[in-house]
Amino acid sequence: MDGKLRPFFEPNSVAIIGASSTPGKPGHEVIRNILANGYAGRLYLVNPKGGEILGMPVQPSIADLPAGIDLAIIILPAETSPQALRNCAAKGITHAVLSAGGFAEVDEGRAQIQQELVDIIREREICVLGPNTSGNISTPHRFTSSFFPLGKIRRGKVSYIAQTGNFATHTMKYILTSENFGVSRVIGLGNKIDIDESEALEYLADDPETSAIVMYLESFKRPRRFLEIAREVTRIKPVVMLKGGSTEIGRHAAVAHTAAMAAEDRLVDSMLRQAGIVRIWDYTHLILAGKALSMVPLPRGNRVSFLAPSGAMLVVLADLCIHLGLEIPDLGPDALQRLQEISLPFIRMRNPVDIWVAASVKGVEFGYREGMEAVLKDPAIDAVVPILMLTKDTGIPSFDFIIELARKYSEKPLLVTFSGERQYMEDCKEFIEPASVPTFPEIEQPFEVLSILARCRRAMNRPQ
Amino acid sequence: MDGKLRPFFEPNSVAIIGASSTPGKPGHEVIRNILANGYAGRLYLVNPKGGEILGMPVQPSIADLPAGIDLAIIILPAETSPQALRNCAAKGITHAVLSAGGFAEVDEGRAQIQQELVDIIREREICVLGPNTSGNISTPHRFTSSFFPLGKIRRGKVSYIAQTGNFATHTMKYILTSENFGVSRVIGLGNKIDIDESEALEYLADDPETSAIVMYLESFKRPRRFLEIAREVTRIKPVVMLKGGSTEIGRHAAVAHTAAMAAEDRLVDSMLRQAGIVRIWDYTHLILAGKALSMVPLPRGNRVSFLAPSGAMLVVLADLCIHLGLEIPDLGPDALQRLQEISLPFIRMRNPVDIWVAASVKGVEFGYREGMEAVLKDPAIDAVVPILMLTKDTGIPSFDFIIELARKYSEKPLLVTFSGERQYMEDCKEFIEPASVPTFPEIEQPFEVLSILARCRRAMNRPQ
Repeated sequence: MDGKLRPFFEPNSVAIIGASSTPGKPGHEVIRNILANGYAGRLYLVNPKGGEILGMPVQPSIADLPAGIDLAIIILPAETSPQALRNCAAKGITHAVLSAGGFAEVDEGRAQIQQELVDIIREREICVLGPNTSGNISTPHRFTSSFFPLGKIRRGKVSYIAQTGNFATHTMKYILTSENFGVSRVIGLGNKIDIDESEALEYLADDPETSAIVMYLESFKRPRRFLEIAREVTRIKPVVMLKGGSTEIGRHAAVAHTAAMAAEDRLVDSMLRQAGIVRIWDYTHLILAGKALSMVPLPRGNRVSFLAPSGAMLVVLADLCIHLGLEIPDLGPDALQRLQEISLPFIRMRNPVDIWVAASVKGVEFGYREGMEAVLKDPAIDAVVPILMLTKDTGIPSFDFIIELARKYSEKPLLVTFSGERQYMEDCKEFIEPASVPTFPEIEQPFEVLSILARCRRAMNRPQ
Repeated sequence: MDGKLRPFFEPNSVAIIGASSTPGKPGHEVIRNILANGYAGRLYLVNPKGGEILGMPVQPSIADLPAGIDLAIIILPAETSPQALRNCAAKGITHAVLSAGGFAEVDEGRAQIQQELVDIIREREICVLGPNTSGNISTPHRFTSSFFPLGKIRRGKVSYIAQTGNFATHTMKYILTSENFGVSRVIGLGNKIDIDESEALEYLADDPETSAIVMYLESFKRPRRFLEIAREVTRIKPVVMLKGGSTEIGRHAAVAHTAAMAAEDRLVDSMLRQAGIVRIWDYTHLILAGKALSMVPLPRGNRVSFLAPSGAMLVVLADLCIHLGLEIPDLGPDALQRLQEISLPFIRMRNPVDIWVAASVKGVEFGYREGMEAVLKDPAIDAVVPILMLTKDTGIPSFDFIIELARKYSEKPLLVTFSGERQYMEDCKEFIEPASVPTFPEIEQPFEVLSILARCRRAMNRPQ
């Protein structure tokens, strides 16, 4: 098993079966993606027309390829994919990504083509990712098999397993254009006729380039095996999962999507809990959790402090924390003393922290900086969230101090959110996120994410 | 009672007690706000120093003001506010906004100053908003008493009642800089020593400029009276409420904030339900609900259809709808037939709608337009959400057709969300929101908001 998936992520040579000279076609865009990411291995193109594509020679057939190619990316219609796979196997290629859709997820007639692929895999011992997959990504190896125009993909340390083509395409594009974190490996499972979530998880468990794993699954192919692997990996790496098809009607939609009937949701829930996998419920949290796991350590526990120069913010966020299972503990004497010093004697400071007085008397930056440092220092606190209320007229802090505090107290997650003028929120995001301080546009989000991180920690520390 | 609050929202003449020549000071910024909004009434400034501020003459004392002024905005420290209020009353002024904080929310000693104000109100029959309020807004009258630098405030048809200064300040600034909807009236209740939520709600119930009411409350001053008024108004206008302090610890924070011990949350919940008020749980939903209520009609029911060229999106959003209590009904024969026409025969079309085939074969715009029109036409559907998956390479639709469809089927809410490249999401938002089609950056949000709107409709139609 070990290393079975490696050629998908660290191929020394890759052949694209169905390479196209037409921009916009998947067989063309996959080449551009590979070039844009600076792939350093050998790249072979196959198309019956021969000639050149993007300055590279094109082989007319798979038979014309040299021996010893690690990975084939087969970008052909469903009907011609089986023969191509057979030809690749005959050429000694041991790994293939099958991009085409239109198999079992469509109708029964086409399910037969999928069965043909399954037979070839069994006979020829070739490893297949897909079909119906938007491919995989491996930024440490500067490689991708995605045919969706992504350009250069930002490198990171969180990896994704997704039973949907949607992740390595539009969602990835969103992350690349709107976020400042990157990914390590992305595995688009597609119809899972061969490689499934268990093998994907096993690969990432041992992968030194992967520090946390975020999953979107619609079904379990081998639940027992998956459970076995998950039980181990969740003790060393956080695993977060959104399970699509948790309702009857969602399952209905899932059948149309990846041809897999989802398991009963309650069973899923207890299985995930046993396995130490942290279940999430929103697609958006796939992105936000990935961002936080990329930038901050896991909190030691679920005890948070948060600060704002606004009473209402503190009230609604205190309510939210309680609903999310986060604690808002009393602060230690040192923190309280410092907070009292920067406030007024007749205002009793507590957690959550109202920095209104400090901010109005000594300036917004002073209020946030001193308040944040007081609670970051406090051993009673595991994570800190400043709600930055930004308007030009009340003064925009420099943002430098946030990065400094994040570095100084690097063992504690520091998550930033905002209220006020949009432009300054964007400025702050672009300034502090490249220094690994995540920001969240909506005030509820850092707390939702902290609750996910705290559950990851609890899973990691759970008794044997 | 009737018209008791009118001078706060339609004053013909206003005096600012504590006017300041120093930019940044509340007594200065309130003048700039009033000028920026184009207030057409008479404006009088009072400051012992006299002279001129922003080209207007300053009276040295309240006694120097002419008779017949409708409204005083008192922007003075807590200690000197009672005397100023007394002097205003002596001058025949019947309405005053008391901006200063530092009363009962701070400590007991200062609670005495608040008691003094209460005594004056009782003796002199003057109506007071506040203290500890960031003021009120009345865009139809181009007036505000807010001292927080807001500039010109966009006019709209939704009104807000907020027991926090945070709303008419940073949250308002966020709405003005990041959203395309405006407000009609905003009432910052502050410590509610006189005007409370019942009177505010009663005023807005009869206000022809208010089509829906969104509230943030931390406590009820006269619950029975409030219930009485709410029961009536919720039959004619939607009322949505976030109740701060729903947890023990949130209540703890609420005491520090507006000096009001919150009522037990379960009682609150049943009271709101009886009153037909739709309770929400996220501060962000104060903004998103206000946006939707500003732009779309209430749906007739909770039956939604949504469209995307991505199976996973449909699966996770189907799950979400079920969790939110939204129905995803089977489509009628006409809609199904049309969807089948724009797809392929062997793909069985259903609700939610996968427009992948239509979009890939005939173009993204065709797929969305024809798909959306098919379900908008269907009498089985109350509201429609397209998930626009936008990347340059797969083609950006024109967005015009969305506005056209929204106008053509104006009786049904059409809410838009996105995946893909950030820039195109922003472009689309700026293009369609001014034409009253709301957009939501996260795919869960339109469904969360639709569930709020559907509950508003149910409240409105509830039996007597």
